[in-house]
Amino acid sequence: MLAEIITIGDEILIGQIVDTNSAWMAKQLNLTGISVKQITSISDDEQHILDALAQAEQRADIILITGGLGPTKDDITKKTLAKYFNMGFRRDEAALEMVRQIFEKFKRPLIDVNIQQADVPDGCEVIVNKNGTAPCMWFEKNNKIFVSMPGVPFEMMYLMDDEILPRLKHKFKLPAIVHKTILTANIGESFLAKEIEAIEDALPAHIKLAYLPKLGQVRLRLSAKGDDESKLKAEVEGFAKQIMAKVEKFVVIDEDIPLEKAILNVMDARGLTLSTAESCTGGYIAHLITQHPGCSSVYWGGAVTYAYELKESVLGVKPATLATFGAVSEETVREMSEGAVKHFKTDYALAVSGIAGPDGGTADKPVGTVWISVSSKDKTVAKLFNFSNKRLQNIERSAAAALTMLLNLLKETV
Amino acid sequence: MLAEIITIGDEILIGQIVDTNSAWMAKQLNLTGISVKQITSISDDEQHILDALAQAEQRADIILITGGLGPTKDDITKKTLAKYFNMGFRRDEAALEMVRQIFEKFKRPLIDVNIQQADVPDGCEVIVNKNGTAPCMWFEKNNKIFVSMPGVPFEMMYLMDDEILPRLKHKFKLPAIVHKTILTANIGESFLAKEIEAIEDALPAHIKLAYLPKLGQVRLRLSAKGDDESKLKAEVEGFAKQIMAKVEKFVVIDEDIPLEKAILNVMDARGLTLSTAESCTGGYIAHLITQHPGCSSVYWGGAVTYAYELKESVLGVKPATLATFGAVSEETVREMSEGAVKHFKTDYALAVSGIAGPDGGTADKPVGTVWISVSSKDKTVAKLFNFSNKRLQNIERSAAAALTMLLNLLKETV
Repeated sequence: MLAEIITIGDEILIGQIVDTNSAWMAKQLNLTGISVKQITSISDDEQHILDALAQAEQRADIILITGGLGPTKDDITKKTLAKYFNMGFRRDEAALEMVRQIFEKFKRPLIDVNIQQADVPDGCEVIVNKNGTAPCMWFEKNNKIFVSMPGVPFEMMYLMDDEILPRLKHKFKLPAIVHKTILTANIGESFLAKEIEAIEDALPAHIKLAYLPKLGQVRLRLSAKGDDESKLKAEVEGFAKQIMAKVEKFVVIDEDIPLEKAILNVMDARGLTLSTAESCTGGYIAHLITQHPGCSSVYWGGAVTYAYELKESVLGVKPATLATFGAVSEETVREMSEGAVKHFKTDYALAVSGIAGPDGGTADKPVGTVWISVSSKDKTVAKLFNFSNKRLQNIERSAAAALTMLLNLLKETV
Repeated sequence: MLAEIITIGDEILIGQIVDTNSAWMAKQLNLTGISVKQITSISDDEQHILDALAQAEQRADIILITGGLGPTKDDITKKTLAKYFNMGFRRDEAALEMVRQIFEKFKRPLIDVNIQQADVPDGCEVIVNKNGTAPCMWFEKNNKIFVSMPGVPFEMMYLMDDEILPRLKHKFKLPAIVHKTILTANIGESFLAKEIEAIEDALPAHIKLAYLPKLGQVRLRLSAKGDDESKLKAEVEGFAKQIMAKVEKFVVIDEDIPLEKAILNVMDARGLTLSTAESCTGGYIAHLITQHPGCSSVYWGGAVTYAYELKESVLGVKPATLATFGAVSEETVREMSEGAVKHFKTDYALAVSGIAGPDGGTADKPVGTVWISVSSKDKTVAKLFNFSNKRLQNIERSAAAALTMLLNLLKETV
């Protein structure tokens, strides 16, 4: 089953926004067993939209269109779809009611252009959009599906999750798909592949294994396709168990969640608290952690200590340590994580001090030199890394390495 | 002059990565005076690549292709381009030398598949890629340009900046384009448009004004097109001055840089130091600031104080204040920013305390309630905001609001 995604509007083509919608949609479609053949971004130009629709229809079974549904006259998706399918317009009462409710909620007067948002091509099925004023429209033609959705990410995501994907599964009687993700760290993709070669070779044809590497971590994703969902689940769990037994010491968690969320889950279950002491990562690790709702049961907070003075006053790093070994040193980073445990009164802490670049490197400590330390109340582990000469990459890689070290320490002390 | 971007490879189509390359390329092309007609993502499939090339050639003058240039056999861009242009292959000595140097640098043995990276279609011009092993290839056909680049972002960016854009400007004798950006805050797009309506109406046809809104800020971009670059510059500066005079109190800076970078520049020039005290933004503001090289001359660091205990011990917030007014209150947030100035010994500080959500709201203080405070050594300004019920949006909006308030305070005390 093949899908295509067409985004309509100028924002992507002028580089004002990054097209995150298509990546999200492609991921959800793939997880449902629908492959994406092409993603196309075009502007609000009638002929170009008509051509893109015709070409997509030749290649794919499902054409998902986002954008161009606003009330202003430069938004022409709806009009163009009517032309493409040779349809007239009708006013949809359910869609109009939703527009009315939204305007009432925000106490804004309902004007003509907004009422017209409820006008739709007369051969489409309207899927009411509970999060916005532009209705979602579902067209069928020669057993091919065209869906037009708003480009606003949270409106599109809710429509995909709650409406479009379930309808597509039903319409095309898609097979059951079961996924299982194992997050690994501290091992490269090719070494990992070698370790589990025998298991991978023995996988039946309906179960695939994908390697998804990112910043020193590799996600292993088992995907099984078939009719009997509970049987598939049992099969996938069986293979996952084999893989985890084979590469046990590299397994972080057997869920598809980010590393920091895995740590929060482990620490929450064990009633442990965490703080951070960041120099070169500059608050990025704290930001990763605090993106997750409910993190406050584990994460107490931390310090971003760029200046020597703050390393001393906030974390209790000794002036003599900084003077003798410098800020980027094993001695300093150990005192940072131990100081965080002590001063912030948490069970665990992590600390990072390095030269993120692009400047500030020396012959001894070039840009990319990063010391990371993790501490519990009775143990500290510190490690030296040599990353690249790219500031943002160094920040991201340092964060991933620090979180991996913390997880390793947590595992040691189960 | 029209361009199209074609990305080749599975990562985008399976939703593994977001296509940030195309947005960056589109922005650079637009700034050079080249409009992007379509962005297309396809997989490593020969016929699909051939079709996409043929369709793009019909619509555009310049076709920029990224990806599919790796050494493994699933990367078929080069072979497919040779087929499209009906060319044989030759080994390019300059490209081979670059591959050799890169392998020498990383002390890895040079094997056949890597040597083959220097084989290119014999009718193309090779642009040596100094940052990677895949050469960039430039094809000309009927006055249309096709460029094939690696998909690795930093390789592509350097090639675009240093090689492709200058060559395109020269090849197509593109007119001079001059841009000038004015960053405004504290005023909505439509109000801003009303304020400067007379100036906008008086702009000559060759000067355009764009409104680029984002999180409580609006960027105004003047773009002038013509032959005489210095004359255009003078004209654009003249109109920019008029706009800035008209909406003076909303102007942040007249450069195309992020808000936090504008603050760093202002504070650096005035020899001032900054610290941060974050609760609900959880280190995000510190992260924004520390993304910028050289920030350490201004930014000393800060605290992420999720727990009451840290608000007290690190920032000196009084337990009575927290007990009486709660963490999300004017009283607490004022003590946080004043405490940061005092304890971190900086000239200025900002503090944020709010309910990011999705849980934790009350009838009095629903999710999205955020108090922000900024302090100098002798003044504190605090303000209440009511944002949305989306955690990440609340974090981003709080950061933008806090930085805007800081800049306002800095302006008051020039």
